[in-house]
Amino acid sequence: MSDGTPAPVRPTLEEVARVAGVSRATVSRVINGSPRVSPDVLVVVEKAIAELNYVPNRAARSLAARATMSIALVVPENAHRFFGDPYFADVVQGISERLDDSDYVLNLQLTHPSSPSEKTRRYLLGGNVDGAIVVSHHSGDHFLASLGRSLPVVFGGRPLGQIANPGDYYIDVDNRLGARRGVEHLIARGRTRIATITGPADMPAAVDREMGWRDALAGAGLSDHRIAHGDFTEAGGIRAALVLVDEHPDLDAIFVASDLMASGVLLALEERGLRVPTDVAIVGFDNSPYATRGRIGLTTVAQPSLEMGVVMADTLLRLLAGEQVEHVTMMETSLVVRDSS
Amino acid sequence: MSDGTPAPVRPTLEEVARVAGVSRATVSRVINGSPRVSPDVLVVVEKAIAELNYVPNRAARSLAARATMSIALVVPENAHRFFGDPYFADVVQGISERLDDSDYVLNLQLTHPSSPSEKTRRYLLGGNVDGAIVVSHHSGDHFLASLGRSLPVVFGGRPLGQIANPGDYYIDVDNRLGARRGVEHLIARGRTRIATITGPADMPAAVDREMGWRDALAGAGLSDHRIAHGDFTEAGGIRAALVLVDEHPDLDAIFVASDLMASGVLLALEERGLRVPTDVAIVGFDNSPYATRGRIGLTTVAQPSLEMGVVMADTLLRLLAGEQVEHVTMMETSLVVRDSS
Repeated sequence: MSDGTPAPVRPTLEEVARVAGVSRATVSRVINGSPRVSPDVLVVVEKAIAELNYVPNRAARSLAARATMSIALVVPENAHRFFGDPYFADVVQGISERLDDSDYVLNLQLTHPSSPSEKTRRYLLGGNVDGAIVVSHHSGDHFLASLGRSLPVVFGGRPLGQIANPGDYYIDVDNRLGARRGVEHLIARGRTRIATITGPADMPAAVDREMGWRDALAGAGLSDHRIAHGDFTEAGGIRAALVLVDEHPDLDAIFVASDLMASGVLLALEERGLRVPTDVAIVGFDNSPYATRGRIGLTTVAQPSLEMGVVMADTLLRLLAGEQVEHVTMMETSLVVRDSS
Repeated sequence: MSDGTPAPVRPTLEEVARVAGVSRATVSRVINGSPRVSPDVLVVVEKAIAELNYVPNRAARSLAARATMSIALVVPENAHRFFGDPYFADVVQGISERLDDSDYVLNLQLTHPSSPSEKTRRYLLGGNVDGAIVVSHHSGDHFLASLGRSLPVVFGGRPLGQIANPGDYYIDVDNRLGARRGVEHLIARGRTRIATITGPADMPAAVDREMGWRDALAGAGLSDHRIAHGDFTEAGGIRAALVLVDEHPDLDAIFVASDLMASGVLLALEERGLRVPTDVAIVGFDNSPYATRGRIGLTTVAQPSLEMGVVMADTLLRLLAGEQVEHVTMMETSLVVRDSS
């Protein structure tokens, strides 16, 4: 090019948009690797990018947007709970898999349950992350619940009613319906004195599963007074099962709000000489590795934890790319029947 | 102070520099805990700071030094290995406990084994963290091995010889001596045909434990040809044990380089109808929850994983504060004898 024209100027994103005949946001989505770009649009935009020899300038991009290219996964649990519950392993795996196909790194932040520290708050709001995924939030986490006002945030699981914001984005399963189906399965097997062991009362998933248990019992005209409270740990499941069999020796089934707790319930019942399922049938929730680890395979309400992690990450990436995203994504549970019922 | 002088003005960094007779940049380095300040200069600057009662303004400090007040914990393992091995739970717990008493947040970065992605590299070197702790590094991790040249880094476990730098900081146990003591215990119990199941050959801890096994056998004039290679997973332990008993049906003991693998070994031996410890005695390594989870309590070489996490964090915090720190901190192993031997 020695025809006297000035040296070529780097093409801009706007020019790509004009040549492709699409919006600036669409070009941005293509560049950021969003999976929600239709194949047709992808072809057109990539053709325009090639034609103009457009190179996204990462540095400029970072400076303009103060992008850190990192996403926080905020887990308000201690290391013991975090490592002890296979749900988190699945969710982290799913989020990691989705982020592998993006330019973002995952920045995992463990914070204290119910009270994320001041330094975590300062860190998250201090421009150190571009967005956040919050899982396993308790109702006391007012800071985490309000995080979505300052930062693009996706919740893993619905925030509790009293602190939820209408604009929240979350991925969840219908815990109430899933639990109801699990308890209806016990009723179909002829059980009539069905107890439950709940999760922590400050967690929406636990509250919903308890309601599903009540729904099924009410639907069949059965009593819902056999209840013990657990904490989503194996030791908590053992403790709660011992309380239940002492207080309600007539029970013939227990719906347990997590497989990890159910794994403890199986140990406790064995210790008391109660046979599963002959004396007491058990249904858990999660379909985690704990459901198949013990001597007795656990019937359980399966939730697609890994896929939920993928969708959490995907939803946040789409928010960051400026896309319109559904506020609520509900995923399916299914009943997996094994020996315990 | 009602003597007519104006209200005291906060002393500035420039005044500290003037009083200390050093440059502004040097004062800034001291305040930000740079490890590259000479002890003499440190004394002079700290004296000036005390004299003027200078309080660094955190916001200003962050802007000046781009301090993120976050520390990366880099784990080059996939989510499955990370969640499946209790060693990581202990180390994360220990690091978290130490950081709770500091102004730093923990930023956990899972990266692919042996090849941290380009984006992780860019992130770690891009001013997004003030320092890093690297655990479970494999010998292929040249980037992680060289990270210490660009950032204050503490390794959990000694980097392998060929990629280690003389300036590396690391926390470790004497894996070789610990393994030797474990095998000597088997010899003291009268075992003479002692096999081993190793960890991955690209990990220093695995190599050292194998050498300790050889040391003990050589010391007693016993043969060291009964060996199978594992990968620090339970399934790998099962596979390796089956190979060993097929190839060396005369073996009377196995030193297994991790409890998680040993937990698989117990399952495999039971399947083959071999009694532990009557037919085959077992010694593991770690003293993790897996050592006491099964029907048979596992004799094991205990390492203080949680305390190692605390010391890793403490060492990095001291580096960040500009302190002189020992390059190598070795912690003690101890033998815990249970039913398997």
